[in-house]
Amino acid sequence: MQNRPFPWQDRPSGCQDVMWRYDANPIIDRYAIPTSNSIFNSAVVPFKDGYAGVFRCDNKAVQMNIFAGFSKDGINWDINHEPIVMQAGNTTMIDSDYKYDPRVVFIEDRYWITWCNGYHGPTIGIAYTFDFKEFFQCENAFLPFNRNGVLFPKKINGKYAMLSRPSDNGHTPFGDIYISYSPDMKYWGEHRCVMKATPFEDSAWQCTKIGAGPIPILTNEGWLMIYHGVITTCNGFRYAMGAALLDENEPDKVKYRTQPYILGPAVDYEMQGDVPNVVFPCAALHDTEEDKLAVYYGAADTVVALAFGKLSEVVQFTKENSL
Amino acid sequence: MQNRPFPWQDRPSGCQDVMWRYDANPIIDRYAIPTSNSIFNSAVVPFKDGYAGVFRCDNKAVQMNIFAGFSKDGINWDINHEPIVMQAGNTTMIDSDYKYDPRVVFIEDRYWITWCNGYHGPTIGIAYTFDFKEFFQCENAFLPFNRNGVLFPKKINGKYAMLSRPSDNGHTPFGDIYISYSPDMKYWGEHRCVMKATPFEDSAWQCTKIGAGPIPILTNEGWLMIYHGVITTCNGFRYAMGAALLDENEPDKVKYRTQPYILGPAVDYEMQGDVPNVVFPCAALHDTEEDKLAVYYGAADTVVALAFGKLSEVVQFTKENSL
Amino acid sequence: MQNRPFPWQDRPSGCQDVMWRYDANPIIDRYAIPTSNSIFNSAVVPFKDGYAGVFRCDNKAVQMNIFAGFSKDGINWDINHEPIVMQAGNTTMIDSDYKYDPRVVFIEDRYWITWCNGYHGPTIGIAYTFDFKEFFQCENAFLPFNRNGVLFPKKINGKYAMLSRPSDNGHTPFGDIYISYSPDMKYWGEHRCVMKATPFEDSAWQCTKIGAGPIPILTNEGWLMIYHGVITTCNGFRYAMGAALLDENEPDKVKYRTQPYILGPAVDYEMQGDVPNVVFPCAALHDTEEDKLAVYYGAADTVVALAFGKLSEVVQFTKENSL
Amino acid sequence: MQNRPFPWQDRPSGCQDVMWRYDANPIIDRYAIPTSNSIFNSAVVPFKDGYAGVFRCDNKAVQMNIFAGFSKDGINWDINHEPIVMQAGNTTMIDSDYKYDPRVVFIEDRYWITWCNGYHGPTIGIAYTFDFKEFFQCENAFLPFNRNGVLFPKKINGKYAMLSRPSDNGHTPFGDIYISYSPDMKYWGEHRCVMKATPFEDSAWQCTKIGAGPIPILTNEGWLMIYHGVITTCNGFRYAMGAALLDENEPDKVKYRTQPYILGPAVDYEMQGDVPNVVFPCAALHDTEEDKLAVYYGAADTVVALAFGKLSEVVQFTKENSL
Amino acid sequence: MQNRPFPWQDRPSGCQDVMWRYDANPIIDRYAIPTSNSIFNSAVVPFKDGYAGVFRCDNKAVQMNIFAGFSKDGINWDINHEPIVMQAGNTTMIDSDYKYDPRVVFIEDRYWITWCNGYHGPTIGIAYTFDFKEFFQCENAFLPFNRNGVLFPKKINGKYAMLSRPSDNGHTPFGDIYISYSPDMKYWGEHRCVMKATPFEDSAWQCTKIGAGPIPILTNEGWLMIYHGVITTCNGFRYAMGAALLDENEPDKVKYRTQPYILGPAVDYEMQGDVPNVVFPCAALHDTEEDKLAVYYGAADTVVALAFGKLSEVVQFTKENSL
Amino acid sequence: MQNRPFPWQDRPSGCQDVMWRYDANPIIDRYAIPTSNSIFNSAVVPFKDGYAGVFRCDNKAVQMNIFAGFSKDGINWDINHEPIVMQAGNTTMIDSDYKYDPRVVFIEDRYWITWCNGYHGPTIGIAYTFDFKEFFQCENAFLPFNRNGVLFPKKINGKYAMLSRPSDNGHTPFGDIYISYSPDMKYWGEHRCVMKATPFEDSAWQCTKIGAGPIPILTNEGWLMIYHGVITTCNGFRYAMGAALLDENEPDKVKYRTQPYILGPAVDYEMQGDVPNVVFPCAALHDTEEDKLAVYYGAADTVVALAFGKLSEVVQFTKENSL
Repeated sequence: MQNRPFPWQDRPSGCQDVMWRYDANPIIDRYAIPTSNSIFNSAVVPFKDGYAGVFRCDNKAVQMNIFAGFSKDGINWDINHEPIVMQAGNTTMIDSDYKYDPRVVFIEDRYWITWCNGYHGPTIGIAYTFDFKEFFQCENAFLPFNRNGVLFPKKINGKYAMLSRPSDNGHTPFGDIYISYSPDMKYWGEHRCVMKATPFEDSAWQCTKIGAGPIPILTNEGWLMIYHGVITTCNGFRYAMGAALLDENEPDKVKYRTQPYILGPAVDYEMQGDVPNVVFPCAALHDTEEDKLAVYYGAADTVVALAFGKLSEVVQFTKENSL
Repeated sequence: MQNRPFPWQDRPSGCQDVMWRYDANPIIDRYAIPTSNSIFNSAVVPFKDGYAGVFRCDNKAVQMNIFAGFSKDGINWDINHEPIVMQAGNTTMIDSDYKYDPRVVFIEDRYWITWCNGYHGPTIGIAYTFDFKEFFQCENAFLPFNRNGVLFPKKINGKYAMLSRPSDNGHTPFGDIYISYSPDMKYWGEHRCVMKATPFEDSAWQCTKIGAGPIPILTNEGWLMIYHGVITTCNGFRYAMGAALLDENEPDKVKYRTQPYILGPAVDYEMQGDVPNVVFPCAALHDTEEDKLAVYYGAADTVVALAFGKLSEVVQFTKENSL
Repeated sequence: MQNRPFPWQDRPSGCQDVMWRYDANPIIDRYAIPTSNSIFNSAVVPFKDGYAGVFRCDNKAVQMNIFAGFSKDGINWDINHEPIVMQAGNTTMIDSDYKYDPRVVFIEDRYWITWCNGYHGPTIGIAYTFDFKEFFQCENAFLPFNRNGVLFPKKINGKYAMLSRPSDNGHTPFGDIYISYSPDMKYWGEHRCVMKATPFEDSAWQCTKIGAGPIPILTNEGWLMIYHGVITTCNGFRYAMGAALLDENEPDKVKYRTQPYILGPAVDYEMQGDVPNVVFPCAALHDTEEDKLAVYYGAADTVVALAFGKLSEVVQFTKENSL
Repeated sequence: MQNRPFPWQDRPSGCQDVMWRYDANPIIDRYAIPTSNSIFNSAVVPFKDGYAGVFRCDNKAVQMNIFAGFSKDGINWDINHEPIVMQAGNTTMIDSDYKYDPRVVFIEDRYWITWCNGYHGPTIGIAYTFDFKEFFQCENAFLPFNRNGVLFPKKINGKYAMLSRPSDNGHTPFGDIYISYSPDMKYWGEHRCVMKATPFEDSAWQCTKIGAGPIPILTNEGWLMIYHGVITTCNGFRYAMGAALLDENEPDKVKYRTQPYILGPAVDYEMQGDVPNVVFPCAALHDTEEDKLAVYYGAADTVVALAFGKLSEVVQFTKENSL
Repeated sequence: MQNRPFPWQDRPSGCQDVMWRYDANPIIDRYAIPTSNSIFNSAVVPFKDGYAGVFRCDNKAVQMNIFAGFSKDGINWDINHEPIVMQAGNTTMIDSDYKYDPRVVFIEDRYWITWCNGYHGPTIGIAYTFDFKEFFQCENAFLPFNRNGVLFPKKINGKYAMLSRPSDNGHTPFGDIYISYSPDMKYWGEHRCVMKATPFEDSAWQCTKIGAGPIPILTNEGWLMIYHGVITTCNGFRYAMGAALLDENEPDKVKYRTQPYILGPAVDYEMQGDVPNVVFPCAALHDTEEDKLAVYYGAADTVVALAFGKLSEVVQFTKENSL
Repeated sequence: MQNRPFPWQDRPSGCQDVMWRYDANPIIDRYAIPTSNSIFNSAVVPFKDGYAGVFRCDNKAVQMNIFAGFSKDGINWDINHEPIVMQAGNTTMIDSDYKYDPRVVFIEDRYWITWCNGYHGPTIGIAYTFDFKEFFQCENAFLPFNRNGVLFPKKINGKYAMLSRPSDNGHTPFGDIYISYSPDMKYWGEHRCVMKATPFEDSAWQCTKIGAGPIPILTNEGWLMIYHGVITTCNGFRYAMGAALLDENEPDKVKYRTQPYILGPAVDYEMQGDVPNVVFPCAALHDTEEDKLAVYYGAADTVVALAFGKLSEVVQFTKENSL
């Protein structure tokens, strides 16, 4: 990550929040490619001397699909005009009624993509690529219904590890975060509950459901998991962003978890759009030496925005404001 | 329509969309008459040397009623401050708990108005006028519950023809477009299904329900029917606009139908208001020679806005982007 | 009806109810034909020197269809093993996804059958026959969604008249009785509300929904309309039977309507079956001279049963126990 | 109230509405104290030579609590950074899972605060203070579930009187205003229904539910009760403000009640926020001699705003626009 | 209770249950009075040399009302054919849309009746009588919505005490037992939560809602409160009977509570009727010396039945099978 | 299976159904062990010279657990009075809030039990035993929510294979049958959809949801899978039994599937009980030489019953009555 420019702005003077917004948000407009109705809930990863990404672009028929994109600086993006075409990976069954909410991570020798894959309802799709040109789709991780499948960036105790949220087939009104393990990215087991939606009285912004966001980041306090939480208002769901610290070797153990949110819908492009009041993080870049964290999030199910924080401060905030 | 000014703006440079918005939208403000809370979902028609219209004005008790209005240019409107008072037409039963979402069309010798009429729930009211001063209310077309009754501008096979959408008595979560015929504007029959809401995977923006919009326009590819489609997000309904081409003589036969929407909520006055994220077309003016189309639509259930397109391009777009 | 035997049993000694059950109920078992899962909600009519009937037989795939049957005495029935096949009547569009809950009536020169016809959801199907061998299907009376279409046995003011209940596409939790008129059994209009479900406090057994049952019977107090009413208990719907008297010439005027039910689910075959607690009348025979009334009703959505009353007493009871 | 500055702006020229907004709204920002996510639905009262208030501040965990605050001019406020801590008043049972939507009133010798108190669900909490430093919590007024408890500013027929709205334990989809009496602020009875949500046809903006707002103001036409009304749109609830006049000595008798709302969501900070489209009044200041009324209301469940009117005009408007 | 016969049958041989059924159940048939559709959920009390009772008789319009009745032996009952007519007691407001589920208790000098009273929805009605001929209706105890109001048979700490269950206005899918106090049977306060529905895993038969049944019985282990619990099956609610022991002086303190039910629907008249699978206790007689307990319960919302137990065994069972 | 008596009765004379009931049903009463409220949905398997079984016994607190039992003849059963206690198998995480609806199968060297296991909601629990005395619980097969996990009786293409039905956390109103594979009974993948609920018009008895029943039986037409199907009536769910034939080597391929049900609720113990109208098969014995099939099913969620058929006839019926 040495020579690669890191997307960054210092904290605005006067601001005392642990996270702050990029002042030129949104970084990707809803109409950034010709067919799109909205581009949001997308993932980025360091790639070569810049960055690659996998983007959720709903078209004007509101069909959901994922597209590859590239950037020198992590802020200005060229997104392909055609969706990713999958080849068969460790399976021949690569059915997909729709694809949305991707995450991307590099493990060992390749980039793994997970997403919400339509196979008789939503479940977790898995694919890998070496170059963001050819993509190889693997077995779905789970039976339907599931969303927000997020891989850890390295094996844990010799197994691949994935966070996910069991769901139903609609606008799921519940949802907790689980972890599952696999020896081979094909068969999954050892399912454990990690973290639940909270009682209303304890922390209402995350009382309806929660779901993992970016790839977890290893810190000296354990895995930093940024996630989204949802409250049901009388006018629907409101999505905000929180953080948790999971034990490094037993990541189903939650060490700390923010009682307050760390970023909630409060500016125009978050409060207004196809689904008002949504802040939905899907990816993060970090530079431990420079103590920088950049979180990519979907805003109002319409655009992509960027928020910044000091990595050490986010960890500290999580410890000091824990449930 | 020769000497009458046609409301129009050329496509903005750089815009590649098939439809574009009037840059002084909204053309009618929510408070345009003293009693109004909102003015939207309204209809206009050429009249004398200008235009007449029937406007849905909800008052500050949020009671729904329809009002006559007049304009020289189709953009600047004088709307009566009192709602339309009905006299008895082909019936003495002219009960009406409320009136909303009018359409207007000239057939043979008079102007016909249809609207959503409150008679033990919503159904389709019918009235005619010669002068937009005296209005004669006729038998309701159907039993409750129905909405979006839209007449064809001429008889088909010797019968009046009406599109409509069977509904329920609430915020109907389903709805398809039907056609019915009448020899006399009093008795209705020969009900046929024209077009259904789409499977989510095929075209999600119109997967919850659909309803006819402006009076259909006869083109050399058949009847151009502009309509609204609805998707259910986790924060409620989102209304967008599409187009279809129906067979000239058998209008229950759909020849083409847009998979993408042609205009969706994306600017402030469409995304913010009494019901956010609503684009609801109810009327259209066209000039075939000049190849101009002007669509009037309700925005956010609050104001009236105007969008333009080239008639031939809309037809072409519908054929080339058909489901 | 002279030589034809009338199905009858005198009131049991000690019984003071206005209606009483046949002591060999149910008269038709659920498995009376080889394919049937249940036979219920069916209609009978005098025919030649005996009776003909149209029967709802759901098969073991629980597909709904109607079957012709014949009887000498109105009690013992031979039901065809194959469903009725329709020919085209006053239309060529005779689509039917399913057929259920038939009614039969003789008017002028032929027998008319109405039923709940599956055409994009339930609506009212119409057919006629002269001989119960050949059946001619006509235009559906209404747009979906509708159920319980019941014709009057003669024209009223020169028009055919039909009772019906606007519905939705599921287990409708509401429903009132309307009347509509037609000059020709093809086009229907002049829709009027006849009678609504009652406020809970006034008569709770009919507070969820109501629907017309047998063909109305002309008495010197007007039309006797036997109908079903539904209450929603914490364990689902409960259907019982009531009676009303409608004005002879203006049948949307209700003269009397029973506050209490006249027969409710209280014996084994009514309280136990595919849908417990259902008494659903669909047909009635009467002999004015002998002062006899025999009502056929579906019990527990499973079998057909029979109840008797003195016609004059039912009329008197309706007048004396009116809402 | 003599020397105390009254928060006020004259009606803008051209404005013909009975109420108008303060042009520097919102007066309190969502982040006005360090922990807050939103500050809204709050109450103020004259205190010493300025004003005191009790503010609903939801923190960034979206936990609801009430905070004291002080102001010289009623517009610029210093809100404590710590919530109110209660001591025991006429009870030892001062359980409270959460506190929200406070009202404040001075009666006889002290200030009484009522609020929505979490005790096995929402009910009405009561406390008193002499100095806004020490607070004494009393018995809850009612069993759960209840909201919007509002005291009258003096005893009526020798008893304390409280308006309230029986509710359920969620986003209650119904709700009417009742009055109850107490000899001692501990035992409550003589419950009477004051005013119901309206039939949709009569006044739709208040057809889902209603609730009392500020402390009623005694005028020579009786008690002026400003209240909120709710309509259910297809995208959720919309809250607006109305007014009623209650009989001075028998306040369960409604003399007048506005059919139109007097202020509805129509500007940015009302239409956009954590819950879009909410105008929720909780407090009012008035100066009868100067004929001034200032209403504090929560906007979009996010901020506090201020609206003004002439007291005599609001009374007159209520009489002339009554249901 | 000396000379008065106690309704009783010894435990059948072989039976090992703590409660057993009367072998001639049901003791009161659904049609026991001429107008009744069902007689259930009713209360009895020793009176003179026999027993008096207040009975819920729904008529054939399914209107709910309460009727007085008398018995020599507690098993054979004469129920009045006319409902109880109320005179004004400590109030003039004795509105009542309906009355159901009565309880009766003697305190000091008179018999008090509580019931579910229809006043803008269900709440708790109160009346007293000295002779079961004249009845004096008092102030409703609470605001709507409430059900299952049950008085203690003596004052506790100098106040009247009542159990009740806050509810909603439908087939309430939740509900816990509370206690409230009153100095004068007019004003009520000091509301405390006594006992909640259980987590599904702990005791599923009572996991949807619970409600107090007969008047609590003072034992040397505290107040024996027999109550009903409800589970939601995929076919609706199922009501069974349990028991709890409350502290004598602080009855909001639960000492013991049965994890298993003590009587559940298992015989014909409990599993079949207007609402299948309901056992609903409303009254109990006991004879401490003879160690006898007789519980009256409504079965299937249709009839009245009787179950017996040894008082000491029920207390012992409650202690030994406590949650 | 040679010397072991097979539970059997020949088809009753006159019966033409493909399956018939044992005339001494139910074979296990709801109170067969002291603590039980109901015993149903249970599994049996040949064991030593008789049979072993795993039984769902809900206790009188309606807590669900599984119990071992033994029988010489498959009809008369001794069920242990204490539930099965699990030891750790291929995992140490053997949490279980509840256990219900077991299936049992012998594979290679041991008996495997699957059941609906409560781990943050229902999922599929797995255990093995060699002797029905010691039981070893393994990793749950899937994330929540899932029900009706049924193993094949031998490996397919070298992998264990399991049918299951993804569900939600309530009375799931949807549900299709899937298959998944595992190399080691610990990690699961290769999830494929096998068979879906049917459109209402095609076969209504199975239009709400379906779920696998007994262990599939290998026939020369492929795997015979007996399953349950559900229809939603206006009074709740109705469960009946059907059959399908799956390809021997690719069991996600459905060769045949009965359009009609093969056994539906029609006798007292099926139509009346804790959940009326339930026939729920969980186990089957077969003797290919003798051409006998015996199916164990839960009736009305209350008791265990037995039905018989000729194996070849059931296969033939499935082929001839296929959807």
